[in-house]
Formats: sequence, structure tokens, C-alpha cells
Amino acid sequence: MVFVSGHIRCFIIILFIILCVSPNINMDKVAIVALGGNALIKKGQIGDIHEQFANTRKVSSSIVKMVKAGYKLVVTHGNGPQVGSIFLQNNATRDIIPPMPLGICVAESQGFIGYMIQQCIFNELHKENISKKIATIITQVLIDEKDLSLKDPTKPIGPYYNEDDAQKLLKDGYQITMQPQGWRIVVPSPDPKAIVEADIIKRLLDEDVIVIAAGGGGMPVIKKEGWGLDGVEAVVDKDLASERLAEEIKADLLLILTNVDKVYIDFNTENSRPLNTVTLNEIKKYYQQEQFPQGSMGPKILAAIRFLEHGGRKVIIADVDQGWEALQGTTGTHIVNE
Amino acid sequence: MVFVSGHIRCFIIILFIILCVSPNINMDKVAIVALGGNALIKKGQIGDIHEQFANTRKVSSSIVKMVKAGYKLVVTHGNGPQVGSIFLQNNATRDIIPPMPLGICVAESQGFIGYMIQQCIFNELHKENISKKIATIITQVLIDEKDLSLKDPTKPIGPYYNEDDAQKLLKDGYQITMQPQGWRIVVPSPDPKAIVEADIIKRLLDEDVIVIAAGGGGMPVIKKEGWGLDGVEAVVDKDLASERLAEEIKADLLLILTNVDKVYIDFNTENSRPLNTVTLNEIKKYYQQEQFPQGSMGPKILAAIRFLEHGGRKVIIADVDQGWEALQGTTGTHIVNE
Repeated sequence: MVFVSGHIRCFIIILFIILCVSPNINMDKVAIVALGGNALIKKGQIGDIHEQFANTRKVSSSIVKMVKAGYKLVVTHGNGPQVGSIFLQNNATRDIIPPMPLGICVAESQGFIGYMIQQCIFNELHKENISKKIATIITQVLIDEKDLSLKDPTKPIGPYYNEDDAQKLLKDGYQITMQPQGWRIVVPSPDPKAIVEADIIKRLLDEDVIVIAAGGGGMPVIKKEGWGLDGVEAVVDKDLASERLAEEIKADLLLILTNVDKVYIDFNTENSRPLNTVTLNEIKKYYQQEQFPQGSMGPKILAAIRFLEHGGRKVIIADVDQGWEALQGTTGTHIVNE
Repeated sequence: MVFVSGHIRCFIIILFIILCVSPNINMDKVAIVALGGNALIKKGQIGDIHEQFANTRKVSSSIVKMVKAGYKLVVTHGNGPQVGSIFLQNNATRDIIPPMPLGICVAESQGFIGYMIQQCIFNELHKENISKKIATIITQVLIDEKDLSLKDPTKPIGPYYNEDDAQKLLKDGYQITMQPQGWRIVVPSPDPKAIVEADIIKRLLDEDVIVIAAGGGGMPVIKKEGWGLDGVEAVVDKDLASERLAEEIKADLLLILTNVDKVYIDFNTENSRPLNTVTLNEIKKYYQQEQFPQGSMGPKILAAIRFLEHGGRKVIIADVDQGWEALQGTTGTHIVNE
């Protein structure tokens, strides 16, 4: 009896210590909040720093409500307008400053937007007397060097150029395409395979840090034999990159915040109707019917399908200013595994 | 006897578990490697991306040697040429894109340079078959809102402007100064008080992650009552910021890599002579004699003095391409606590 009681006490003490020191054991839900590229510069705005901070503060309020509700969060974000500006600035000063490649422009936008989001979330937490750490992780995204899109760039980026500038860009090795408004650079948009920094992001989450990552879909890199990683002139869709990250960190929820309140089918027709709650099988059917245009809703739906097929529990697509309300179920499109 | 043996066994098991799960217990030395602003663009180079990556690869080789020797590392870096370019690009396109404030330009440079360093270190580790994680942390640096320098900006940044452009900058709220080559923006250079993300950086180090942080001295922020953090148009010296971080993470060594092989006294005179090993008291004496110019070696020496006075063991100042050799004691100036 003495032996048994000693062992039981020993077992309880060990269990207690494990529960105290291990950061991996917790019951909180893990969510990725993916902010749309236009979430931080609204329609009609010129995108100065005051507007961008004001928009970021607004969305930070939803994020802090999620933190209060016990979610462990990774915030990802688009970078369309910001990286477009950086790219244009690089080209406008090309005669005096060597222009940086697209990957560097994406990295710059990650620093810029990450700083803005981390400060706004910190300040929202501060107002609520919540003491939590926030980190922006500069994120690379691994792509397959055999990805077919690398040979067939189709995604237009940046501004429209006149003939002279277009010729200079051609010389720099860019592919360009003629559109009604002028010449435009097109780059590949390969499929993300893995997030290079996923393990670090997971560890920070486990330590209860709010993480900002995979900005602009991450800087695309390929693995080169005997070398390591090498940057590629391409852009990765931020929702597809967010989904890969969600898989890798085993998130429960993917919350995609964009500029529409819900996903619509038969969009732009007389029969246009919003989806409230929809199952994986139903959304796959709509996706196969090509209900969602590739340039906008398509990648979000593909991300949703992949996430639910790889262990995710729920995807919500909602308006950027209604993240918290969508989570309560009063708005947004909710896509669930049956 | 039965009781005692049960308790001893219990104690040993608990000790074993604590040793296994606690990442904080290790015998490795913690070092900060501070790369000079000109380390990544050498004299005579135009600073295109190929040159910058080549220079970064070179310094990464020293860094990986330190990793192999068991150091836990934080890499900090200057951003002079890079942030200068970003700032100039912003001003050159101000008529079509709202120019970003200096803090945002610094954040962009952290993303850019962090990405470059993390990829180059990863590739060097890969060649050596070392599997280690690397993270760039976007870093804010807390300054005192009563810092006297805020009212008296003296640090010139960015390019020289003509009268017209200078007037536009004045309208934007910048202070400008007339210099022989033209007008130039001057900003405050306040003293860093704390690194906002120090705790996260420490946790990552404890988990054996190589961290890149405090780029360009960090984005300076002040604490505002009832608000939180707010960015300030200023730049913080990267060596002084690195030193604050070194204190906060309890580093043993601060390795400052710059464009001279050693610290010199009576520099630019007939008596000019290098310092090999020097004590804290000796270097304080030289500092008080104003041996080190404020624009270059001064802040490095001040950083060294502060670090050694706050628990640091050693500071080495050496050439950027001789980091490893300096650590071996064959070059560089070694400043030690007596």
C-alpha cells in the first residue's frame, strides 16, 4: 500500500509538471485569418499611410475579439496594391537605382504590412488590457520547379507601361503582354507546396504568440540541388499559401476576409444568390461548374476545398469588416465538412 | 526505507522530465552579430541584387561557422544604402503614389534584407548538412518620448534635393538642412530604450532558431497613454539597438562587423594605431577623450561600453569578411570586462 501511494503521488506530480511546462498541450482553437489584398486600401482611397493604418485598426478589432474568445491566430494578408506601388517605384527610378526583383518587392511589402498589422493588433490588445506577444515572420513559400505555370506566365502585375518602358522591361527578362490600356508585366503564379517557416510559426503559436505570416503569398522559392533555396520571379496566391500554412500548423478554421459579404453563385446574373452554409461536396460541385472566376473567388474556393480535404474543420469567407460577426454565424459563407 | 527510495526515484524522474522538456537549459553561448550598413553593398558597387546576395553569402559563411561552434545567434543589420534607396524611390514617385513615412521604409528594408540573410544562411547551413531553422522578426524599438533628440533632428538621411523638392519635403513636415551638395532631410536619432519583440526573439533562440532582428535599428516607437505604440519619424542607431537587444536576451558576446579591421586611436594622425585587446576601463577613457567620431565608430564604442557594463562578457569589432577569424582572436579589436 505504501508503495502504491508513493507511485500514485509521483504520477500526479509528473502529470502536473508536464501540464505546466509543455506549451503544446492546450485546448484552444487555431485559426488563420487571411486578409484580402484590398482590405487595407479600400475602394476610392489613394492608399496613404493614414488610410492604411485606419483600415488595419478596424480589422484588428475583429482579430482581438477572436483572441479574447480563445483563438490562437495566424494573420496572413494580401499585398496587391502595396507591392504594385513598390514595383512601380523601382521601375520609375531604374536609371539611378538598380531595380529590385519581384521577390524582394514582396519581402519589402511583408515588412511594411507586417509592421502595420502587428502595431495595430498590439494597440487593440493594449486597450483591452490583454498582454500578448505578436510577431511578423518573413515567409518564403516553396514551389515545385516543374510547376507548369513557370513556363507560361499569365498573371498580370503592376502598372501599365508605354512602348519604351515595356522594351526596357523585356531587356530585364520580364515577360510582357499587350492589354487595351498598355503593356503589362505577366509573371507565373505557381502552386504553393509548403511554407518554409511553418515550423517556426507553429512553435510561436504554441507559445501563445499571435503570428503575422505568408504576406502576399510569401516569396516563392525552389529547392536547387547542392545549393538550397533560390527565389523565383513569380507570385503565389495568398489564399492558397494561407491554406498550405493552415494544413501545416493543423489549424481548425480558415477565415478568409475579402471585399464581399458572402460567396455568390450565378454571380452577375439574374439568378445570383448568396451561399450561407454549404458542405464540401456542394462547393466542389459549384467549383467544377466553374462558378467562381479564377482572378478572384476561384482561388479562395480552391483553398477552402483543399483545407477541408486535409483535416480542416471549417472555412468562412466574409467581408473584411465583419470577421467577428461572421464567426458568430450572422454573416459570411460557411463551408463545412459534412 | 521504502518511502525514501520511492521519493528519490520520483525526484529523479521529475528532474529528467524537466531537463527534457525545458528549452531554456543549455550551455551554448548566445551572441549577437551586428552587420554594418555597408556590409551588404561594398565600396564601388552599384548595389544591385546580385552584388547584395553575393556579399550576404560571404558573411553567412562566418555566421555558419559560429553556428557549428555552438553559438546561438541573433543577426542584426544596418540598412543605410537600402533604406536610402527606398526613401528616394518614394519621393521620386510622390506625384503618383503617396510617399510612405520613414518608419515604413525601415520596415520594408527589414523585410528585404531579412529575406536575403535568412535565405543565404539557410543555404550555407544546407551545404554543411545542418538542419536549423531561421526566422526574421520585424522589430520595433521603444524610445522615450522625452528624448531630447526628437526636438533637435541632426541625422541627415537619403539623397540631396534641389530647392523645389526641398520645399515639397518641408510641406510634408520634414526638417531639412542646407549642405554644400544641396538640401537634405535631417531626422532625430533617439536613444533606444527597449526592443519591443525582445521576448519573442529570446524564446526563438531558446528553441535553437537563428534569428534576424532589429534591422536598421528597428522602427522607433513611443508609448502613448491610452493608445499603445506609435511610430516616430526618426532612425535609431543599429549598434545601440543591437546592444539593447543583447542586454535583453542576456547575450555573452556582441560581434560588430563593419568596414574596418580594428578600432584605431588617434585615427587619421601620424600616431594612428589599432587596438587589439582593450579593457572596458581603457575604452571608456578613450571614449571620454572623444577618440571616436559620432558618425561612425562612436556609437559602436558606446554600444560596447553599455554591453559590458550590463553583464556582457566581450565585444569584438572587426571587418565584415573576417568575423570568424576575429572570433578566433587573430584579428579585430577585442573589448573585455576586466
